[in-house]
Parts: sequence; structure tokens; C-alpha cells
Amino acid sequence: MSFAEVLKDITDDVKGAMGAVVVGMDGIIVEEYLRESGVDFQSIGAEYGNILKEVQTASDSLRLGAAKELAVLTDSSDVIIRKINKDYFVAMMLSTGGNFGKGRFMVRKAVNRLAKEF
Amino acid sequence: MSFAEVLKDITDDVKGAMGAVVVGMDGIIVEEYLRESGVDFQSIGAEYGNILKEVQTASDSLRLGAAKELAVLTDSSDVIIRKINKDYFVAMMLSTGGNFGKGRFMVRKAVNRLAKEF
Repeated sequence: MSFAEVLKDITDDVKGAMGAVVVGMDGIIVEEYLRESGVDFQSIGAEYGNILKEVQTASDSLRLGAAKELAVLTDSSDVIIRKINKDYFVAMMLSTGGNFGKGRFMVRKAVNRLAKEF
Repeated sequence: MSFAEVLKDITDDVKGAMGAVVVGMDGIIVEEYLRESGVDFQSIGAEYGNILKEVQTASDSLRLGAAKELAVLTDSSDVIIRKINKDYFVAMMLSTGGNFGKGRFMVRKAVNRLAKEF
């Protein structure tokens, strides 16, 4: 299954999911699947890549171990981010009111599948 | 119900929760309840207060609206953070394998209760 197929698979299975993406820690998008147009995954990848780095620095400083997952809920959307390895992560974006729990589950599933390819 | 009682109430009701805390965006702890000793909420409050600010800056830049909630999962623990208002937030820390979904629900409940007092 290609990266694009994995992303489509997890997005289409989650109510309210707008799309999913594989991103490098440098913010560069490796693959994306958009169910709704108008989602700026390029900027989201770059911004959340930076936050993931900050979170890792904080986790190191607090001796909590490696940061595996990050979720941010705003007024208009939810973003779920999970690391594939130290260099890449998967992000899914949901509209508010989407199925956040299912989203987390599917992102985790995608990471398990994709990890074999990296 | 006092702040301390609200924090005890939500912590004791969640499997794996180690404690909960009310923190200012400056990282200063207003109130805390620890079910397990050895959790350094002072440092956690300060580090995650900073991350919450970064997340807000990113959300503004991405035009996603106000950041309401943040969750970080590391190798050893899960932290759930939810804003009470622009100056204060509630954080709950769970050991890995704790009930994350119930934790989110209870943190949200605490924020709704505490918001009336701020």
C-alpha cells in the first residue's frame, strides 16, 4: 500500500477528518491526502513540526522520554500528530466535532504501517 | 467547591492520573493536587505553559482560532492541558496506559467548573 493510499484509508474512515499528511521534521511534506480542499497542509506541517521539536525539548528537560504524539484543539479544528520516527511524523486534521478518538486510533494505525517503510 | 477539591475530584476519578494542577500562563502554579508524589508540577507547568504559548502563536498564524486544548504523549506519561481563559490552564498528568479519554473528559469538566471562578 502506497503512502497516499494509507493516508486516504485513514482519512476516509474518520468522521470530520479533512486530510492527513506525512511530514519531515523540517516541515517538508512527503505525501498528503486531502478530502477537503483549502487545507494548507504546507503551513500546518511547518508550524507543527516546530512545535513537535519544542515538545521534544521540553520532554527531554522534564525527563519524560521521547514525545510520541501531540494533539492540538483550536476553535475551528483538531490536529493529531504522531511521530513515525525521529525524522518524520503523520498529521491528521479534523473539523471541530469530528471523531477525535477514532482519529487518534487511525493515525496510530497509519504510523505502525508506515514505520516499516522508513 | 475549592480549586483543590475540583482537582482532587477529577484526578481520583481517572485511572492512571498522577495529579492535576491550575497554572498561570507565566508557569506559576495556582493550585495542585498530587495523587503520586515525585511529580514535578512546577517544571511541567513552566514548560507546558511555554508550549501552549507557541501553539497559540501557530494557531494564530494558521488562522485556526484560539488554542483550547493540548495533549502530549511521551514514553513515560501523558499530559492533558486545557485553557480556562487566556491567562490560566488546567493540566493533568497520567502514567502511560492511564485512561486518556476519561482524562480529557474530566479536565474539560474541571475547566467548566473553574471558569466561573476566574
